[in-house]
Amino acid sequence: MQNSGSKPCSCPSLKLREVASMYFTMVVAFLVILVVALQGSVPRENDFPYKVPLDPQGLLELSWNVSYAEQAVHFQLLIRDLQFGLLFGMSDRGEFENADLAVLWSDGHNSYFGDAWSDAEGQLHMDSQQDYQLLGARRAPEGLYLLFRRAFSTCDPKDYLIEDGTVHLIYGILEKPVPSLQAINVSALHGGLQRVQLLKPNISIPELPSDMKSMEITAPDVVIPSQETTYWCYMAELPEGFSKHHIIMYEPVVTAGNEALVHHMEVFQCAAEFDSFPHYNGPCDSKMKPERLNYCRHVLAAWAMGAQAFYYPEEAGLAFGGPGSSRYLRLEIHYHNPLVFKGRRDSSGIRLYYTASLRPYDAGIMELGLVYTPVMAIPPGEDAFVLTGYCTDKCTQLALPAAGIRIFASQLHTHLAGRKVVTVLSRAGRERQVVNADGHYSPHFQEIRMLKEVVAVFPGDELITTCTYNTEDRSRATVGGFGILEEMCVNYVHYYPQTQLELCKSAVDPGYLHRYFNLVNRFNDEEICMCPQVSVPQQFYSVPWNTFNRDVLKSLYGFAPISMHCNKSSAVRFPGQWEKQPLPSITERLREPEPRCPPSPGPQPAAPVPLELGRLRR
Amino acid sequence: MQNSGSKPCSCPSLKLREVASMYFTMVVAFLVILVVALQGSVPRENDFPYKVPLDPQGLLELSWNVSYAEQAVHFQLLIRDLQFGLLFGMSDRGEFENADLAVLWSDGHNSYFGDAWSDAEGQLHMDSQQDYQLLGARRAPEGLYLLFRRAFSTCDPKDYLIEDGTVHLIYGILEKPVPSLQAINVSALHGGLQRVQLLKPNISIPELPSDMKSMEITAPDVVIPSQETTYWCYMAELPEGFSKHHIIMYEPVVTAGNEALVHHMEVFQCAAEFDSFPHYNGPCDSKMKPERLNYCRHVLAAWAMGAQAFYYPEEAGLAFGGPGSSRYLRLEIHYHNPLVFKGRRDSSGIRLYYTASLRPYDAGIMELGLVYTPVMAIPPGEDAFVLTGYCTDKCTQLALPAAGIRIFASQLHTHLAGRKVVTVLSRAGRERQVVNADGHYSPHFQEIRMLKEVVAVFPGDELITTCTYNTEDRSRATVGGFGILEEMCVNYVHYYPQTQLELCKSAVDPGYLHRYFNLVNRFNDEEICMCPQVSVPQQFYSVPWNTFNRDVLKSLYGFAPISMHCNKSSAVRFPGQWEKQPLPSITERLREPEPRCPPSPGPQPAAPVPLELGRLRR
Repeated sequence: MQNSGSKPCSCPSLKLREVASMYFTMVVAFLVILVVALQGSVPRENDFPYKVPLDPQGLLELSWNVSYAEQAVHFQLLIRDLQFGLLFGMSDRGEFENADLAVLWSDGHNSYFGDAWSDAEGQLHMDSQQDYQLLGARRAPEGLYLLFRRAFSTCDPKDYLIEDGTVHLIYGILEKPVPSLQAINVSALHGGLQRVQLLKPNISIPELPSDMKSMEITAPDVVIPSQETTYWCYMAELPEGFSKHHIIMYEPVVTAGNEALVHHMEVFQCAAEFDSFPHYNGPCDSKMKPERLNYCRHVLAAWAMGAQAFYYPEEAGLAFGGPGSSRYLRLEIHYHNPLVFKGRRDSSGIRLYYTASLRPYDAGIMELGLVYTPVMAIPPGEDAFVLTGYCTDKCTQLALPAAGIRIFASQLHTHLAGRKVVTVLSRAGRERQVVNADGHYSPHFQEIRMLKEVVAVFPGDELITTCTYNTEDRSRATVGGFGILEEMCVNYVHYYPQTQLELCKSAVDPGYLHRYFNLVNRFNDEEICMCPQVSVPQQFYSVPWNTFNRDVLKSLYGFAPISMHCNKSSAVRFPGQWEKQPLPSITERLREPEPRCPPSPGPQPAAPVPLELGRLRR
Repeated sequence: MQNSGSKPCSCPSLKLREVASMYFTMVVAFLVILVVALQGSVPRENDFPYKVPLDPQGLLELSWNVSYAEQAVHFQLLIRDLQFGLLFGMSDRGEFENADLAVLWSDGHNSYFGDAWSDAEGQLHMDSQQDYQLLGARRAPEGLYLLFRRAFSTCDPKDYLIEDGTVHLIYGILEKPVPSLQAINVSALHGGLQRVQLLKPNISIPELPSDMKSMEITAPDVVIPSQETTYWCYMAELPEGFSKHHIIMYEPVVTAGNEALVHHMEVFQCAAEFDSFPHYNGPCDSKMKPERLNYCRHVLAAWAMGAQAFYYPEEAGLAFGGPGSSRYLRLEIHYHNPLVFKGRRDSSGIRLYYTASLRPYDAGIMELGLVYTPVMAIPPGEDAFVLTGYCTDKCTQLALPAAGIRIFASQLHTHLAGRKVVTVLSRAGRERQVVNADGHYSPHFQEIRMLKEVVAVFPGDELITTCTYNTEDRSRATVGGFGILEEMCVNYVHYYPQTQLELCKSAVDPGYLHRYFNLVNRFNDEEICMCPQVSVPQQFYSVPWNTFNRDVLKSLYGFAPISMHCNKSSAVRFPGQWEKQPLPSITERLREPEPRCPPSPGPQPAAPVPLELGRLRR
């Protein structure tokens, strides 16, 4: 890389001169803004508490902070091996087309920064409103630091709206100089995507007790397999006679250098009904894995890339140890190794912090959403099919204490077709509060997320979980079930005080579904065998999926009574009549929040900001 | 009214001082803008070609022009008897709540102008962005003239988007001084609404021949009945032996002083199969009206308040006179007399301009949309139920000449539940062009509108007409038919050269509707008699309208094959198979135009503009 002083800018090429004259007037105005910005609000380096590698080699490292007061995110992007520029941005699901991008590019002489967008063909265009605001650029031994700011909402229709939940970050590397931003087509670039929860909740960390201890559940020097995807399973166990404790916090332990490979990790507790579990240390899908490990499914801790330490609220902890609780734990690590590195060793895992001084409340986990049953199905070829699972007033009336429960965290879950998940609290027919929502949900990024606001749920409240699926790549119906090509719609909510209610989920009444199949049979001209002795999946697979049959299935799900699972454990229902229950009726919906747009800088003419970086590469 | 010089403003009340200090800084900035605006772009008075009275007394008169280059409307509002201010604005359907308003108000000392909006309770709020821009105010002997400007689209979510088609203008009169804009609640004001086509097409007027003659079809000195609504019928006749002529233009003739009472007028030609028609001059709904007048339904000319002269394109004229054409004409005038004036005399009507030098083409009128049949029905309690009528490729293939036809005007028609109407041209499955659209359609305002752009329709094209209905005030289904409480969905398109195709409309296949009734019967638990011997309206009336039955009816209309009426006249079909035809499939929809927002003035702090009008009233 060349020193910026070694080649003065006195002999620009013709192209550069054209560019310069085009932008000159604009740039003067911009520099003023830039200087003001640099003076006023450059954050210090330790002001970026969140960090994630963008690429599998870890050459690009993103740190950020969130200002809810300013409704803006400040980014610090470390570029370790800058070539001729970089694209960084956001898009609906990580695609390069229709993306919102901050672009640093060099024409071989000078460098520029600008806010751009890519069209449906991947062609870049300068944004009419410059909303990625450059705050500074700095060379350091480890690479170039770019500091910039972006408001959550810009009201520029070409911009991405930063919302709660998953954000698909994308990056692209410019390996050659480009004469202008408009000369870039992102489809041709080397790049990738990274999913993060950009809008981390702004929660104060509860005080930790002095008697707090920690234990590491980590993989014992695993050689990461040289394949893109590995789920690694390792069995650990608590000491014999380990009494009841409260987990009050946990954090990831990631082997240095493997930050870009360790995608997510979970610690599960095994079922108490078995006295012992075999040892195991190997891939989760291996034929050598003992069957019994399938009984280790009670989540104790879960971490995904970009997540930080998880703290329980100060009144509650997650009980483990003691009688009625298994000593056996299963650690599962998802290694994501797209560059197929060989021989990488890893000892990552999760560090649990726990205390014997039990907090006032045990925390619990409750499953909301849909029962795992084929009666809830998605036709093929749908771009956004919606299924809804209900936790009804009747169930919460029966199962929740009068003082209610407090939901403080949530983990959303679907299989591969899931695109959005949201749970809403409704009281007396009126939607009151979003419990957790992810409009860019990905089944590949299932974190336990602390809620921005603790949600109080009282007897008689309803919790309505809605999942949106995409089955455009499928040729037959996708039914509910446990298989990876079947679907789920679940929100695991973490709450306290723990109650007996483990499962509050629903599915359409099977009798009404039967009427639907009859109707399809009679209405369509084709002769299809939909005899009742055929299984529900088979019946769904034989539906001729025209618009009418699709629409009527939607209408059925929006109308037919439901079968409620209001259960103490997955097999034991609370006493009561739970079949053919009426759908909760909603008389008042929550309004979509109107995006607040920043009063400044407001619409600005599109112009790149020149950077004094010298030539980036020979 | 007091002269503005007689009381100097040196002793403002405490309230005024508060207001003044609140707004002082803002106002300074605003005055600069105001002065610039006044210097730059005050239009002359004769620059407002369109004019309409707002109130039934004609005290408020609105003139306007449309600049498609600036994407803005310039308004000139004449206020003949100003009290303490005036509200003028627009809302979805003429309601006072959720309206977008320009407000002139006086606190008893000073006057102000501002852009405001009313909330769902009718409470006024200053707009955060001032998009009604005051250009000037001027006192004249006849009253106060206010000049202001409004961009079609402002991108302020509180603002009304000015679109093609009907705009519901509203006005309210301030009869007392108000301390501030925020002190106004529109629900309590005296006011009203007026419907206009604000965005008049910008069409060049074709050259008129020197041999052009005119004839007035006017009411012979009618005493307007002292009731709110009167449809007046008057029979006129052409001279005996009147040969074939072309109507090439027509315009309204409105008796001076009655501008606010004459709501709309139409001239119909009677059926040629009757040799003579009786004379008549009286209310259309009178028992004395001869039955035979019902055979005078062929529209020759139609005018509604706010409309101007109607010109045929220079290649075409509307044929009348000559063999095979009735000599008898029926003039129908809708008098709207909400203040129940007594003894007003009127001789309004329509002046037809015609020529014996026939133009190259006869113009024709074709009916698009839905057949008048009860199989197309709207459930009760719907806020926006959509029905669609098709003119299929098969019909246009058969009936249109290879060179195609040119649609140059259109009259949309529904009965009382109609809220929106749109016709789209589709070719090879792709929507190409909107023929005519009215997103604020009112059955009380049915003009023949010249199209901004002539639409060429070729054999194989499809014309799809979609109507949206509101039946929230109804307790039983609304079926298609001729009755005022039944519905229609029609677009009368005016085109040339005339073809044999008079009617290109559709309705759902009755067999599929029968399957729907069976399905409703079987699916719902209730026992309803839907025996086939019962009439279709009776079957619709007995459907239990739950969400499922509503949704499935929608799905049926979106899926079931159609019965096509591809007719030479209302009773004679073109030869061919027209039953159980497939619905046209649309693979590509027209995109909603993205609203263009004005680059200036952009968001401005909310502040009223003070006006030097002195005190308005003692």
